[in-house]
Amino acid sequence: MIFTVVGKDTTSSARTGRLMTSHGEIETPVFMPVGTAGTVKAVHQRELKEDLRARIILGNTYHLYLRPGLEIIGKAGGLHKFMNWEGPILTDSGGYQVFSLSHIRKFTPEGVVFNSHIDGSKHLFTPENIVEIQRTIGADIIMALDECTAWPSEHADAGKSMEMTHRWLARGIKHFENTSPLYGHEQLFFPIVQGSVYPDLRKISATEICSYPTAGYAIGGLSVGEPEEVMYEMIDVVNSILPQDKPRYLMGVGTPVNLLEGISRGIDMFDCVMPTRNARNGMLFTRRGILNMRNNKWKDDFSPLDPEGTCFVDFQYSKAYLRHLVISKEILGAQIATLHNLSFYLWLMEEARIKINNGTFSSWKKEMILQISERL
Amino acid sequence: MIFTVVGKDTTSSARTGRLMTSHGEIETPVFMPVGTAGTVKAVHQRELKEDLRARIILGNTYHLYLRPGLEIIGKAGGLHKFMNWEGPILTDSGGYQVFSLSHIRKFTPEGVVFNSHIDGSKHLFTPENIVEIQRTIGADIIMALDECTAWPSEHADAGKSMEMTHRWLARGIKHFENTSPLYGHEQLFFPIVQGSVYPDLRKISATEICSYPTAGYAIGGLSVGEPEEVMYEMIDVVNSILPQDKPRYLMGVGTPVNLLEGISRGIDMFDCVMPTRNARNGMLFTRRGILNMRNNKWKDDFSPLDPEGTCFVDFQYSKAYLRHLVISKEILGAQIATLHNLSFYLWLMEEARIKINNGTFSSWKKEMILQISERL
Repeated sequence: MIFTVVGKDTTSSARTGRLMTSHGEIETPVFMPVGTAGTVKAVHQRELKEDLRARIILGNTYHLYLRPGLEIIGKAGGLHKFMNWEGPILTDSGGYQVFSLSHIRKFTPEGVVFNSHIDGSKHLFTPENIVEIQRTIGADIIMALDECTAWPSEHADAGKSMEMTHRWLARGIKHFENTSPLYGHEQLFFPIVQGSVYPDLRKISATEICSYPTAGYAIGGLSVGEPEEVMYEMIDVVNSILPQDKPRYLMGVGTPVNLLEGISRGIDMFDCVMPTRNARNGMLFTRRGILNMRNNKWKDDFSPLDPEGTCFVDFQYSKAYLRHLVISKEILGAQIATLHNLSFYLWLMEEARIKINNGTFSSWKKEMILQISERL
Repeated sequence: MIFTVVGKDTTSSARTGRLMTSHGEIETPVFMPVGTAGTVKAVHQRELKEDLRARIILGNTYHLYLRPGLEIIGKAGGLHKFMNWEGPILTDSGGYQVFSLSHIRKFTPEGVVFNSHIDGSKHLFTPENIVEIQRTIGADIIMALDECTAWPSEHADAGKSMEMTHRWLARGIKHFENTSPLYGHEQLFFPIVQGSVYPDLRKISATEICSYPTAGYAIGGLSVGEPEEVMYEMIDVVNSILPQDKPRYLMGVGTPVNLLEGISRGIDMFDCVMPTRNARNGMLFTRRGILNMRNNKWKDDFSPLDPEGTCFVDFQYSKAYLRHLVISKEILGAQIATLHNLSFYLWLMEEARIKINNGTFSSWKKEMILQISERL
């Protein structure tokens, strides 16, 4: 079994599980720190492993394909070796980055033509070559090429976009099945549900992707501007169709509250740039709420960064010191805040697993959501 | 004894020693990583301590005074506590930064009026308040306010500038003697020799500052554009006058070769932004020479960053990976290169101490200078 459900919450759809990959076992629900270009920004690999105990990280196919490029990654023997990360890696399919980063792009039946945001050079992603690219990168979990439907979209447009994603999926899976991993370790393939904010489309899409017996399923096209309640509704619609015995990955989401709401709806895997990107802007997430480290109120607060934190930075540095670093645009500020935020996200997932397993998830979640939403 | 000479090289003026401070003993020759604004850029404090085993770091009075400012540092109980660094700290006097950073400055007999490079606000450094400021910062070694004479300067101008520095020194020392440390640990005061590139002025200045029985002496105003041979000549002139039993600090110097040449001329202490600043630009110093990590030749060199290195980064990351990070402007690139360069500088000092103590310094230095000057 690649995925095993370990525990189930009786008052919600939350569950714990174990996902096996060639690079190790992942306890779910799990948050995957984003390592866009082969680095979780401002974090050393040994910190990821020893201080954060991250069990899986995410790489962006779009970024890695453009830089350092497949020739380099291939020669290195894959991304694990290139970046010296021995744990599991998931790569997205690049569809979302083409959608969000490339200002010039054209979707065709064949695939998507886009211009690099780095040097303007022209490239083509197809359902087939995106599999090849992820074979070369060598991620443990690879994603199907999808079209991330913009929000808002009319029902008709969202439907057409979804159908494109489905046609691409058929081609992508075929290519996945006809090709092999390059580095002697297994690769799992996840298709992506689209359908924008329309329950009927989401049902069709979930049903369609479930027709493929893949190792897991992802939900894409959410957290792109729609109200949170709509996102939660879509998750409910989709998860009522996705099989219980496969992991469900909610792509690119989200705030700590989003994670808890996702877990309660049966999501097993998350990734988001929020903890790392916001850290670099001086925003800290803690179990007592959100701190803007630029705020004047921290300037002479010499108490530990987070006395309830789980990372060395929480005890070795004060709020006043981090504020000074953030205000002064010092690199160490980004390093400290990033380690803190990731350790908080990973702690939140660990706690969720404990609470699900001991039957107290719903009451804990209710209390936690009040706490973590505070503005300190 | 605050300073003890431990070993002397028989073929040069190189010596090893021990400098006692309230925050620990420092073996000399020593290189002090520059922690401008209360952080050695891109390096965690635990990395400074555990990975680099740095025994003393430098803070810039000018930067710390402007940001976070004395009120914050004072409330924190000094810089050691503010930044959580338990080892010794040396602060410069701000004279050099006023010279190099503030575009609007005016030297008067009272002191130097300057505009902040951050917000343009107007400030005054005097020989007295620079002592007060460093009392508040709480560094273990504090420096006299000097005027860093520009290069080139006419003999007459250099002489006037030097005389100003001497008058300021008399006032600074008086103020130092009339004030006390604030945090229960001792502070040592070092005056600074000036005199530009003129041997007669350097002799006058060295003689003048030696008339004060301070804990150590610094040589300033070098490495500001003059030829290296002239710098070495000035060091020889000054060190022939400075007492043998006090530490000699060559301010703001320099390349690894400069350090070895300085050591052979009897210098005990160094600081320079070069290993950290150049790291952020992708330049690595190694015992086999200098690497520009932007160079295309490293793009598929998957060998360890520095197989002869002494830091974890040298073995955990490859040249190709660091090149990718540098090209992609990733923060981790600055982190890795900085740790590498500082570990190399500190290794070079450690080796120099060993070679001086076992009588092989001069032959080792000759060989090493050839090696480290290579462009790889």
